[in-house]
Amino acid sequence: MSSLLERASAYLRELQDCICDALEQLDGARFQEDLWTRGGDGGGGRTRVIQGGQVFEKGGVNFSEVAGEMAPELLRTLPGDGTHFFATGMSLVLHPRSPMVPTVHANFRYLGRGATSWFGGGADLTPHYLFAQDAQHFHHTFAQACERYQEGAYARFKAECDRYFFLPHRGEARGVGGIFFDYLQDDHERTFGLVRDCGDAFLPAYLPIVERRRGLGFGDRERAWQLLRRGRYVEFNLLYDRGTTFGLKTGGRTESILMSLPPEVRWEYDAAPPPPGSREAELLACVRSPRDWI
Amino acid sequence: MSSLLERASAYLRELQDCICDALEQLDGARFQEDLWTRGGDGGGGRTRVIQGGQVFEKGGVNFSEVAGEMAPELLRTLPGDGTHFFATGMSLVLHPRSPMVPTVHANFRYLGRGATSWFGGGADLTPHYLFAQDAQHFHHTFAQACERYQEGAYARFKAECDRYFFLPHRGEARGVGGIFFDYLQDDHERTFGLVRDCGDAFLPAYLPIVERRRGLGFGDRERAWQLLRRGRYVEFNLLYDRGTTFGLKTGGRTESILMSLPPEVRWEYDAAPPPPGSREAELLACVRSPRDWI
Repeated sequence: MSSLLERASAYLRELQDCICDALEQLDGARFQEDLWTRGGDGGGGRTRVIQGGQVFEKGGVNFSEVAGEMAPELLRTLPGDGTHFFATGMSLVLHPRSPMVPTVHANFRYLGRGATSWFGGGADLTPHYLFAQDAQHFHHTFAQACERYQEGAYARFKAECDRYFFLPHRGEARGVGGIFFDYLQDDHERTFGLVRDCGDAFLPAYLPIVERRRGLGFGDRERAWQLLRRGRYVEFNLLYDRGTTFGLKTGGRTESILMSLPPEVRWEYDAAPPPPGSREAELLACVRSPRDWI
Repeated sequence: MSSLLERASAYLRELQDCICDALEQLDGARFQEDLWTRGGDGGGGRTRVIQGGQVFEKGGVNFSEVAGEMAPELLRTLPGDGTHFFATGMSLVLHPRSPMVPTVHANFRYLGRGATSWFGGGADLTPHYLFAQDAQHFHHTFAQACERYQEGAYARFKAECDRYFFLPHRGEARGVGGIFFDYLQDDHERTFGLVRDCGDAFLPAYLPIVERRRGLGFGDRERAWQLLRRGRYVEFNLLYDRGTTFGLKTGGRTESILMSLPPEVRWEYDAAPPPPGSREAELLACVRSPRDWI
């Protein structure tokens, strides 16, 4: 029988395939694949990036399975003992061309250090314009997966997500949230079930939103707002995101890690607040006080 | 007689005035000024930003003088004892519109914690296209100021600058460097002299470069390269720059801190390396192996 690591890796690799196939069908453009290895038997990954598509201006769907000796910076922050680690994960970020289609992120992973191992994961939605129906659908879809795992799990993981994807220097959430969990160490089989259910929920959670919004018209004003909001995405990823900062500081593959950054971004000094009652003001109010979507 | 803090503050405030006047004359556009206070008697600042100018697409020249109780994150990283601190500083970042005119940064500051106080500062140049003459002029101008302070000081501060403005995940320096010094605690009067000489050297170091390059033609290719290189600037500032990360994490004024970010930026996944022999390849080779400019 295969080990849990082998089974988790196999699932996450299939999930990458399945998500890439669906996104290619939706967009028409193809993913470019880069296979990479860390050298020795340190593992490697499959980075897949879509650029300049009809729907997706830029997006990446990565799989990696790595192992080795842990960098000193990681030692104090991770559970377990010893310096040997392994990690297998699938992570994606999609930046749509249209400001009406939300940016999305998802990540599912299985990590181990010494004799300890744990699952983590999450998915969160970052709209530039608020459609309550979309936020509700996204949350509802992941909530079903979480509740199968444990009653009350969705509420916990939703609150974790609001805490994690938060920019303190802006007083803003990254978007309308989703779910986030980490360091789940007990009952590996049941937790692997949670990860599979959440992984399988990604396409049903996101694709209907893309279908609903991709045809909406937009102009220069909406594009300018999108580029400004993308700045917040960059700020979060480079200042706070654990995966990004640890990845870069511990010798991860830079291009695979930074595929999460948007293609085009603008920063203005002290940009004028959107006019009261505008759709931009509505989005801002929403990220400034996270709500319940279910 | 005024205290050193008062004299340092007065000098840095005048330096801000003097630099803003010269840049307005050069550009034609005006700086927008925001005065801000931290509340209580925590001090405040004068943020000045130029946006959409003829020469400068975006730039900020800030002065601030603040004091208060130190955030716990700062306590372990700073010299001195106790939790009370003061800081007065002038910092600037200029992002020219033309890819032929280099981005520039300078910062001069006087800080104190308990009974300990120190000066720090620096200036570094980030060209998108390499003109050896410009890098030499910039280094030479600051070297004169440093050598008046102490024989050999320029070589030390130049090496510090190369170490500090480095992106390990890219294996690249931020640009062609300049000078950087920090925690200079001995002989305050002489060190204040160094800071004044370096502050006074900024305009003579930078303006002739702008004058030489502002008229050069450029097209879409050069603009695209500039936007890509600006991505590195953002990566450095948000991932590594002490001033930025500590400022944001300890409740500094977000808009004043992030005025350093470029107005328009692009990230491509695994951008094709510039063709051998091209001017873009020349720049890349230069940031990958810092050289002596004098």
